[in-house]
Amino acid sequence: MSSSITGRFELGDFALQSDTILENAFIGFRAYGSLNEARDNVIVFPTWYTGTNDQVEPYVGVGKALDPEKYFIVVPDMFTNGSSSSPSNTPEPHHALEFPLVTPFDNVSAQRRLLEEHFGITGVDLMVGFSMSGQQAYHWAALHSDFVRRACSICGSAKTSSHNWAMLHAYKTTMETTVEWRDKNCQDWDPKVLSVMASIGATMAMSQDWYREGLHLTDEVKGVTDVIGNIKNLFQPWVPANLYAQTLTWMSADVSKNPNFNGDLESALRAIDIPFLMLPCETDMYFRVEDNEAELPFIPLGQLNIIRSKSGHMAGLPGFSPEDDAFIDRQLMDFLQVPC
Amino acid sequence: MSSSITGRFELGDFALQSDTILENAFIGFRAYGSLNEARDNVIVFPTWYTGTNDQVEPYVGVGKALDPEKYFIVVPDMFTNGSSSSPSNTPEPHHALEFPLVTPFDNVSAQRRLLEEHFGITGVDLMVGFSMSGQQAYHWAALHSDFVRRACSICGSAKTSSHNWAMLHAYKTTMETTVEWRDKNCQDWDPKVLSVMASIGATMAMSQDWYREGLHLTDEVKGVTDVIGNIKNLFQPWVPANLYAQTLTWMSADVSKNPNFNGDLESALRAIDIPFLMLPCETDMYFRVEDNEAELPFIPLGQLNIIRSKSGHMAGLPGFSPEDDAFIDRQLMDFLQVPC
Repeated sequence: MSSSITGRFELGDFALQSDTILENAFIGFRAYGSLNEARDNVIVFPTWYTGTNDQVEPYVGVGKALDPEKYFIVVPDMFTNGSSSSPSNTPEPHHALEFPLVTPFDNVSAQRRLLEEHFGITGVDLMVGFSMSGQQAYHWAALHSDFVRRACSICGSAKTSSHNWAMLHAYKTTMETTVEWRDKNCQDWDPKVLSVMASIGATMAMSQDWYREGLHLTDEVKGVTDVIGNIKNLFQPWVPANLYAQTLTWMSADVSKNPNFNGDLESALRAIDIPFLMLPCETDMYFRVEDNEAELPFIPLGQLNIIRSKSGHMAGLPGFSPEDDAFIDRQLMDFLQVPC
Repeated sequence: MSSSITGRFELGDFALQSDTILENAFIGFRAYGSLNEARDNVIVFPTWYTGTNDQVEPYVGVGKALDPEKYFIVVPDMFTNGSSSSPSNTPEPHHALEFPLVTPFDNVSAQRRLLEEHFGITGVDLMVGFSMSGQQAYHWAALHSDFVRRACSICGSAKTSSHNWAMLHAYKTTMETTVEWRDKNCQDWDPKVLSVMASIGATMAMSQDWYREGLHLTDEVKGVTDVIGNIKNLFQPWVPANLYAQTLTWMSADVSKNPNFNGDLESALRAIDIPFLMLPCETDMYFRVEDNEAELPFIPLGQLNIIRSKSGHMAGLPGFSPEDDAFIDRQLMDFLQVPC
């Protein structure tokens, strides 16, 4: 295990896109390695849906792309994940289900303040993200290319697609079936609701091929019921109101939904004037290769390499598959050599 | 609209695979056209998940494969759909949630009795089904090839895959979140539960491509929210306990799960000694082309033609897409000419 530090940065009263001030907002983080004198040997990898700052760990190591002997690697916690400002840790009037919508734009703005104000960082070599933080990579690249030299989205997209939105709507409405949803702080899961959440996850997170080839089977996992059980265990520690808010963040993701681009997706993609690498997985059911292919023509320095894997969306999850991890590591190694 | 007759056939006390006797069981049906003297100019097309016997109609017409001037076309209602024996219309001790598991094997056994005992049919030219009735087509072909000359599965498979089972488990557990599920007859939908059901449907029934290309958009459908609304309208008339039982039927589907094959799927497929046509859709998220490709080598007279369409699973739903309907009609026309 690589040594790391954790901490949290106080943002003060933080203005959100949703015209709400989040009072005493803060952002949690983990960091590996050391800053150089110029304070610019930096890689940033924010957390994703159900992610926490310890989960980038499998990608970090000497000799890997995320080498803590060469880079200062920062893992900012996404708002709503319990370590940054979240429904569970924010007092009234924004406690629990009264927590305002936080967008990827907001997350990225807070991350930039963390990097500049807390660490005095002057520039970022690579901003890389998976899934929801892959979506943040588009935001970094389109809105902060004065600060970031390269960005990479693993299993992500510039804007949540209609299909992906439908799936997230299933998660959202599932959580809303909880008895007395509106009257509670939603600290605990209804076991029935958890079963639905996990079943949707088991359907969408991997791929049909993954199951057909028996890749879900291990000494502990004897069948799909055990997969669903494992996903229940993944959701269980989450405060439901946090996961609910995180789901709304994902549903809102759109790199063009801000005053810079006014909803013009093509303009937002054209504004990416740094090397930008897309690594979709061929069997991902959320973010399709075709979604990234549709974006590619508009990104001047865009590059697209496909993860050939049956792991579906999970191909991009650090530690899910050693083969996928190795492929992604090599891609990032090469990408860090791209001049910029 | 083609003229048709409807009716129901009393099966009496009907023994199910689940070692239960369904008392006073019956099977509903619709039929088009007339029987010839030999009583063997027959096409059978049973209903599917959420299907009713009026929904094959778009495939029926003079000059089409399902030509009522040439064929006697029978549409048997699947158990649990409200027209055949179902949780809603079966008295105690098998009312509502006490309704026993009915398998595709059971459905097919009842259909054979309908055809032989009610209509005096001596042979079937084509047994064709979509989705859950595509799964029935495998059962007809492997277990009743003395009676059926050709069979075709549109967007179906011999056995419900692990991935498909996970999705059905999501439907099942969603229905179980209904307040007091076990204490009620489940005559009505909880609107929150209906929202989850429709969101899962919107995620899985079509394809990512279908949305990306805007094929969901019409004068009435302005976005994915309207798609979810339409699927709610589709589920709304269903008695929840009926749809629940139908979900369990789908989860149980396995052509080899009977004394003839004792769970040996390859043997069941090898037993198909009639021409058997598989028509998977390239974007179907339930039943994959690869699922059928894995079956093909074991089916002696098997044939596989891919529906090239973005409609996903819905490619096989009569009336969903005129282009898909036309492709399937031509396939069935050709298949009816295959000597057997």
